[in-house]
Amino acid sequence: MTVDYKRLYNFTKNILLKIGCSAEHAALGADVLLSADLRGVDSHGVARLSGYVRLWEKNRINPRPNIRIVHETPSTAVVDGDAGLGLVVAPYAMKVAIEKAKIAGTGWVSVKNSNHYGIAGYHSMMALEHDMIGLSFTNASPLVSPTFSKERLLGTNPISVAIPAGKQPPFVADMATTTAANGKLEILQRKNENAPFGWVQDASGNPTQDSNGVKKGGALLPLGGDREHGSHKGYALGAIVDIFSAVLSGANYGPWVPPFVAFLKPDPNPVGEGLGHFMGAMRIDAFRPAEDFKSHMDNWISRFREAKPTDGNTRVLIPGDPERDLEQARIEDGIPLLQAVIDDLTKLGERFEVSL
Amino acid sequence: MTVDYKRLYNFTKNILLKIGCSAEHAALGADVLLSADLRGVDSHGVARLSGYVRLWEKNRINPRPNIRIVHETPSTAVVDGDAGLGLVVAPYAMKVAIEKAKIAGTGWVSVKNSNHYGIAGYHSMMALEHDMIGLSFTNASPLVSPTFSKERLLGTNPISVAIPAGKQPPFVADMATTTAANGKLEILQRKNENAPFGWVQDASGNPTQDSNGVKKGGALLPLGGDREHGSHKGYALGAIVDIFSAVLSGANYGPWVPPFVAFLKPDPNPVGEGLGHFMGAMRIDAFRPAEDFKSHMDNWISRFREAKPTDGNTRVLIPGDPERDLEQARIEDGIPLLQAVIDDLTKLGERFEVSL
Repeated sequence: MTVDYKRLYNFTKNILLKIGCSAEHAALGADVLLSADLRGVDSHGVARLSGYVRLWEKNRINPRPNIRIVHETPSTAVVDGDAGLGLVVAPYAMKVAIEKAKIAGTGWVSVKNSNHYGIAGYHSMMALEHDMIGLSFTNASPLVSPTFSKERLLGTNPISVAIPAGKQPPFVADMATTTAANGKLEILQRKNENAPFGWVQDASGNPTQDSNGVKKGGALLPLGGDREHGSHKGYALGAIVDIFSAVLSGANYGPWVPPFVAFLKPDPNPVGEGLGHFMGAMRIDAFRPAEDFKSHMDNWISRFREAKPTDGNTRVLIPGDPERDLEQARIEDGIPLLQAVIDDLTKLGERFEVSL
Repeated sequence: MTVDYKRLYNFTKNILLKIGCSAEHAALGADVLLSADLRGVDSHGVARLSGYVRLWEKNRINPRPNIRIVHETPSTAVVDGDAGLGLVVAPYAMKVAIEKAKIAGTGWVSVKNSNHYGIAGYHSMMALEHDMIGLSFTNASPLVSPTFSKERLLGTNPISVAIPAGKQPPFVADMATTTAANGKLEILQRKNENAPFGWVQDASGNPTQDSNGVKKGGALLPLGGDREHGSHKGYALGAIVDIFSAVLSGANYGPWVPPFVAFLKPDPNPVGEGLGHFMGAMRIDAFRPAEDFKSHMDNWISRFREAKPTDGNTRVLIPGDPERDLEQARIEDGIPLLQAVIDDLTKLGERFEVSL
């Protein structure tokens, strides 16, 4: 079943108003959350709305946060999200990074005391219209085991980098630092199918194809999958995201990151406040004239697009291509939702007297 | 056969003097080059010395470069390496980044017109003594195929991030954005052994275990190995390194990067000058007091070190642990060199009248 974007947007915004968000935050939060559904990251979109509401019920989300800069230099800042929705805290931080970059050439903002921020790519892409490169990282609930570890110590800690081009659409990488995102496992779980080796380990730390392995005490694996295929690199990337997002800002890191699910309690001895993000903006013309850069980006993108494809594949993709194609289609044709998600949203609507 | 570090250092320095480097550059170049041998990245160390000399013979390395800043803002600069050794151009650029960070909080330098810079980790680690986080990227000769491509369009484009700690040694990630570095393939080639699937594709773009696959027209694979295991993420990371290093600075990018081997000619229609690097420095106390940060880094590192290991493994490593252990051992016991490398250096010494 597909639902019209605008209808889903209004529903989301109205729910956020009902839990006490300001009109501005409700609109922004809905825009950020639904950008995931538009771009095909269904696990991070409206399917999570009731999860955010449950966190609000536990007083773990502050609907009226006083988001503010608590430390700054010409090119850096630390932002305190005041336990607000990450969906609104992260755009605030990205705006600070962009303003810094206008004057200092670049801006880098580490954020504490926040919550889940939707898809990383929404925030990095905010830089594009300013002729800037945008970067967006966040840490997340611990579901990932470092190489050689039985314990889950890292989140899927995504990295997004958005780079403007000229005539070509922008380059937008947006990826979990694991072999596969949790959302892809959920799809296999629903179909009762196995996962490829390299995605999951079991509770003893052995490779498994069980797509329910994480729920049974196992873990997602860092990009690379195992040591022989470079999982120590995926582990290092996830660790860098964790440290930039949380050790720099004063948020919780590693196994202390508060779980997204409200039925799990945060660690009673936190090492920081909330979870953390890291945002960057680099003004292109702080390096070279923006038009020169964009014309070379067009050349870069064209050359990679025109590469001879391997047998059975029609073309080489540029990061951001699949998501942009989906976005176009879903704005026109509506957003496909599983019946379980529809039911969940319907219940939420009944409770708050908001019609879907 | 092992050779004493100091002896190898003096030999390297004297060869660099003989090709016309200044005393300062010869000493620095030797220090950077040999840091690879000390840290176990044998493919990037003294084994490459005669390769640099061959590039100098082809006038592709300028031994007396006028390395300079050609554009800057408070937190950024573009450095022109004047076709100098990357071994000396990159430390210059990193110093600029560090000086910028002292005033603006962070410093970001994109470099054009350079050559191979040794190991990425040398340069990122320069930031540590200043209580800064260091970042170092470089592009390199095209040996890697993007996901779904038969053509080689990217280098092994490494990422290094060095993060200071307090009582613990620093966190130092230094990794190619491929499943395996080329040096690991060379080891298998010498032993006439196969590579694991996921490292290499053949000339038709099919998976292969042939450790000579790249020499036969195939390619190294991006971290992840194949699409199902996230190779599009490794491809995106390598692309980001390429764009930050070269499209931002005005160096050659993608398939236009000049080959390291002197017997292959650079593209007659370059899109920029030389190859490119990207350096970053972030002052810790531009975010929070350095002592707070370091004490939390100590806690981060301890927690990860103490994680329960998987069966058959004794401990969870922190990025930088293996290289630091090797460095300690090799300073004490000397640097192991293959007979082929010894022979190569001996010939080089005879030619330039420098004794090994």
